[in-house]
This record gives sequence, structure tokens and C-alpha cells, in this order.
Amino acid sequence: MANVKIKPIGDRVLVQHIEEKEQVRGGIIIPDSAKEKPQEAKVIALGTGKKGEDGKVTPFEVKVGDRVLISKYGGTEVKLDEKKYTLVREDDILGVIE
Amino acid sequence: MANVKIKPIGDRVLVQHIEEKEQVRGGIIIPDSAKEKPQEAKVIALGTGKKGEDGKVTPFEVKVGDRVLISKYGGTEVKLDEKKYTLVREDDILGVIE
Amino acid sequence: MANVKIKPIGDRVLVQHIEEKEQVRGGIIIPDSAKEKPQEAKVIALGTGKKGEDGKVTPFEVKVGDRVLISKYGGTEVKLDEKKYTLVREDDILGVIE
Amino acid sequence: MANVKIKPIGDRVLVQHIEEKEQVRGGIIIPDSAKEKPQEAKVIALGTGKKGEDGKVTPFEVKVGDRVLISKYGGTEVKLDEKKYTLVREDDILGVIE
Amino acid sequence: MANVKIKPIGDRVLVQHIEEKEQVRGGIIIPDSAKEKPQEAKVIALGTGKKGEDGKVTPFEVKVGDRVLISKYGGTEVKLDEKKYTLVREDDILGVIE
Amino acid sequence: MANVKIKPIGDRVLVQHIEEKEQVRGGIIIPDSAKEKPQEAKVIALGTGKKGEDGKVTPFEVKVGDRVLISKYGGTEVKLDEKKYTLVREDDILGVIE
Amino acid sequence: MANVKIKPIGDRVLVQHIEEKEQVRGGIIIPDSAKEKPQEAKVIALGTGKKGEDGKVTPFEVKVGDRVLISKYGGTEVKLDEKKYTLVREDDILGVIE
Repeated sequence: MANVKIKPIGDRVLVQHIEEKEQVRGGIIIPDSAKEKPQEAKVIALGTGKKGEDGKVTPFEVKVGDRVLISKYGGTEVKLDEKKYTLVREDDILGVIE
Repeated sequence: MANVKIKPIGDRVLVQHIEEKEQVRGGIIIPDSAKEKPQEAKVIALGTGKKGEDGKVTPFEVKVGDRVLISKYGGTEVKLDEKKYTLVREDDILGVIE
Repeated sequence: MANVKIKPIGDRVLVQHIEEKEQVRGGIIIPDSAKEKPQEAKVIALGTGKKGEDGKVTPFEVKVGDRVLISKYGGTEVKLDEKKYTLVREDDILGVIE
Repeated sequence: MANVKIKPIGDRVLVQHIEEKEQVRGGIIIPDSAKEKPQEAKVIALGTGKKGEDGKVTPFEVKVGDRVLISKYGGTEVKLDEKKYTLVREDDILGVIE
Repeated sequence: MANVKIKPIGDRVLVQHIEEKEQVRGGIIIPDSAKEKPQEAKVIALGTGKKGEDGKVTPFEVKVGDRVLISKYGGTEVKLDEKKYTLVREDDILGVIE
Repeated sequence: MANVKIKPIGDRVLVQHIEEKEQVRGGIIIPDSAKEKPQEAKVIALGTGKKGEDGKVTPFEVKVGDRVLISKYGGTEVKLDEKKYTLVREDDILGVIE
Repeated sequence: MANVKIKPIGDRVLVQHIEEKEQVRGGIIIPDSAKEKPQEAKVIALGTGKKGEDGKVTPFEVKVGDRVLISKYGGTEVKLDEKKYTLVREDDILGVIE
């Protein structure tokens, strides 16, 4: 994965797409027919955190290395060393795959 | 139901669809003509909880195992071990079937 | 009315439709031409209550047994023992018929 | 006006339409060309009051018997003893006619 | 101006249109080409005031008699003694002409 | 600039357009192709200030005489002594030209 | 870069576009097919800061000189000494390139 070159701002998280062939065997299969198809991804870097009115930062519910499901329409794609990454807000992370 | 593999984030809840043939006999029948047809489901896993401005987590009104009615248009479908699951926000749970 | 089988979540209320023939004689008649035609219904079950930021629950303005007018486009229909019920948010209840 | 049979919920107010022929002579005439034509009405019943976050109820600015101007597109019509009533939110009351 | 017959509710203000021929000579001319053409008017009556969460009323920035510029699309017209009045929210008052 | 005749209300600011020929030489040139083309203007008068819930007024970030860039679609135009002015909310001021 | 001539207001930041040919070699490549293509830019000047209800200013997460990714549809372009700049809100800065 080399050296990560993007530090997300605020409540954003940098995640790396997991190609379908690499996805957990016998595990989660996302149906093609799903109206809003989520995508499996790995958390690469956490943002600087979401700040409340009082300046306190809310800790993230995910950590670097987590396998997560992200909402398909959330986030912005970037490419780094030939791999697709996505900058998503934490609220676009639906769940952690355990 | 095997081992659940998804931990929902925030105020999300993982629910499992209950096939119509399995639905409570003599019980709740959702009319076909209903404009927004709710679906019967079982709560499989609760999220990490919704956090307020002060960082306090609001407890969920439902618990694992509850049979619930969910709004049809809420949530994101995933498939796990050949069963359909849905990640919904707690606000998309209309009621608990007792 | 048998045993109610749905416990509404949050600020939702379960109401039962009152068929037009059963409606209060000489009483409230909702004009057909009304742009947003309200419906007469009976309160069957109150929800778990709306929680504020501080976790305090706001008491409902209606109680079980009240005859109410509900906004036509509010709520989600379910059928139980051959009767139509609707899960509405308390804000969709326009008034109590006294 | 007989006995009022509807108790409005929350910040809603029950008002009774004043037919044009009954309107204050030499007084307020609402131009036909007005983009949003207000209607003259009489306040029949006040709601249970709007509650703030802290549970305190905000007192109404109008009282039973007031002649008011209401926004034409606000509210829900009901008919009671052959007269038209409207359930409006207090914010749809533009002013009191003195 | 006779006796004003409307007491505005909340943060609304009753203003009277100033016909173009009466407008301040050599003063403010509102270009026809302006996308949102404001109108000159005179403040006739202040509302009951905007209430905050704590019930405190915010004082108005304008006073009875002020010549003001109002946003063209704000407010509701009424006619009183053959003169056009408009009920506007204070936020639709752009400025006071001095 | 004569005597200014408009006192803006709330967080509004009165600015005067700077004709292109008068714009800072060798300075800021706003490209024609810009999707949202900002305009250079001079601050003529500050409003009465934006009030918070507690009645406290937030001081303006700009002062009378500042050369500013304003968002093209913000504000309402008025003409005064043959010059174009615009009433804008402070949030439509993008920056101060130094 | 000469002398910067724009001081952004509020939570805005002035950034300078980095031409594609100047972009980090072997580094971040933004795919053409990306639905919302971000752009690389350099932070030139920070705004006066975003003020909370209590008047406290939230510090920026970026600093002058940072290389950042900005959302393509955010901000307003200006040209200064033949270079393109953009005034963006800090929330339109997706991440810092390290």
C-alpha cells in the first residue's frame, strides 16, 4: 500500500476499494439488484475529526485497517499508485465487517 | 443465522428480512395496496449508537431478536450466507411486533 | 380490538381507522373537496416517546382511546385481524375529537 | 357555533371561515389579484401549545374569538355542523383584525 | 392612514406601499432590470415579536413610520380603505431609507 | 458618494459596484468563463448586525470603505444618484481585496 | 506568487490551482471517469475564521502552503497576475496531500 499521501479533513475517512475477486469468500455478497449497492473497502486513514460547537472532536467509530461497507453514492474517488481510493464522510460508512 | 459479520455504525441497525411465508400466522398482514408498504424483519445487531453534541450515546429502543416493521424505502440491502439483510437507521423502524 | 401486536417506536402512534359509516352522527364531516382530507381514527397505542438531546422523553398530547383527526398523507398502513391500522408520527395528528 | 368538537394538537389553532358577505363592511378587502390571498377567519379553539426542548409551552399570540387573517395555503379543512373550519398552525396566522 | 385594523403576529410587520409617484424625489430609483426588484414602503404596525426558545422577544430593527425597502417576493397583500398593505416578515425588510 | 440613504437591516451590507474600468490595474481580473463570476464592490454601509439567540450581535468582518468581492447571485440591486448599489448579506462577501 | 491581494471572509480559504503538468510525479492521479473529480491546489490564504454562536472562532485544519484536494464544484474562481485562484469554504477541502 506504500506510503499514504492523503490526510482527510474533518469527519472524512480515506478508504481503499476491495476488488470483488478479493472479497471475503463465503461471506458478504452484495446483490446486484440492490437499489443502493454498498461497496466493500478498507480504512486507510482517518480524518482530523468532526468538531462540535464547543471545539471538541468526536472520535471515529472505525479504525485504520477495518473492512467496511460504504454507501455507493458517497465520497470522491482518487487514484494513488494505480489503486482506487475514496474519500468518504464517516456517516457514509454503513458498518464494519467482522 | 451463523455468526453475524457486520457491526453497524452509529444509529444503524442490522435487520434480517422475514419471508412472507414465515410471517406471524393470523397476525399482521401488510396490504398490497399500502402506499408505503412496511416489511417485517428481525433485529440482528445494533449499531455503535447515535452520539449527541456532548458525546453521550442514545440507547436503542429495540433489542437484538425483536421482530420489527421497517419502512420499505429505508436502508441498504446486503446478502450474507444466502439471506437478505438490511442496514437501517433506527428511525426507519416503525414499531416492534409483540 | 383483540390484543394489539405493535408497539410504535419513538414519537409514533398506532391509530385505527374509523370507517365512514361508524363516524360520529351529525358531527364532523370532512368535505370531499378538501385539498388535504383528514381521516378520523382512534388511538390504539402510544410509542416509546420522542427523546430530546438530553434524553428526556416528551409526553404525548393524546392518549389511548382518543378519537383523532389525522393528516391523510401521514403514516404507514398495516392490517391486523382484518382491520386497517396506521402508524403515524404524533405531529400528523391534527386534533382530538371531543 | 354549538359545542366545538375538535381540540387542536400542539401549535395548531381551529379557525372558522368568515363568508365574504359577513366580512367587515368598509374594512379589509383582499384583492383578487393577490398572489397569496389570505382569508378572514375567527379563532374557535387553541391547541395544546408548542413545546420547546425543555418542555415549556409557548403561549399563543391569539385568543378564542379573535378575527384573524390566515394564509390561504395553510391548514386542513374540516366541516362541522355545516360550517367550514380549518386547522392551521399558529405561524399561518398573519395578523389579528382589530 | 385612518385607524390601522391589523395587528401582525410574530416577526411580521405591516407595511404600506408607496406609489412610485410619491417616491423620494432625486432619491432611490429601483432599476427595472433588477432581478429581484425591491419596493419602497412605510412601516405601519409592528408584530407581536419573534420569540426565542426561552420565550424572550427579539426587538424589531425598524419602527412605525420608517420608510423601508422590502423584497418584492416577500409578504402577503391586503387592501384596507382602498390602499394596498403588505404583511412581511422582518427578514424581508432589506433596509431603512434615511 | 453623497449622503448614503439606506441603512441595511440585520447581517446585510450595502455595497457599491465598481465599474470594470475603475478596477485595480494589474490586479484582480475575474475570468469571463468563471461559472459563478464574482464582482468587485466597495462597502458603503454596514447593517444593524446579526443577532444570536441570546440577543448578542456578531460584529462584521468587513468595514466601510473595504473593497470586496461579492458573489454574483447574491443581493438586491438599488440605484441611488445614478449609481448601482447592492444590498448583500455578509455571507455573500467572499473576500476583502487588500 | 507575488503579494496576495485577497483576504477571504469567514470559513473561506484562497487556494491556487496546480496545473496538471506540475502535479506530484508518480503520485496522485485523479481518474477522468470520477463522478466528482477533485482538483489539486495550494493553500494561499486562510479566512477570518468561522464563528460559533458564542463568537469563538474555529481554527482551520489546513495551513498556508498545504497541498490540498478540493471538490471540483466548490468555490468561486478569480484570476490574479495571470494565475487562477479559487475561494473555497474549508468544508470543500477533502484532504491534505502529504
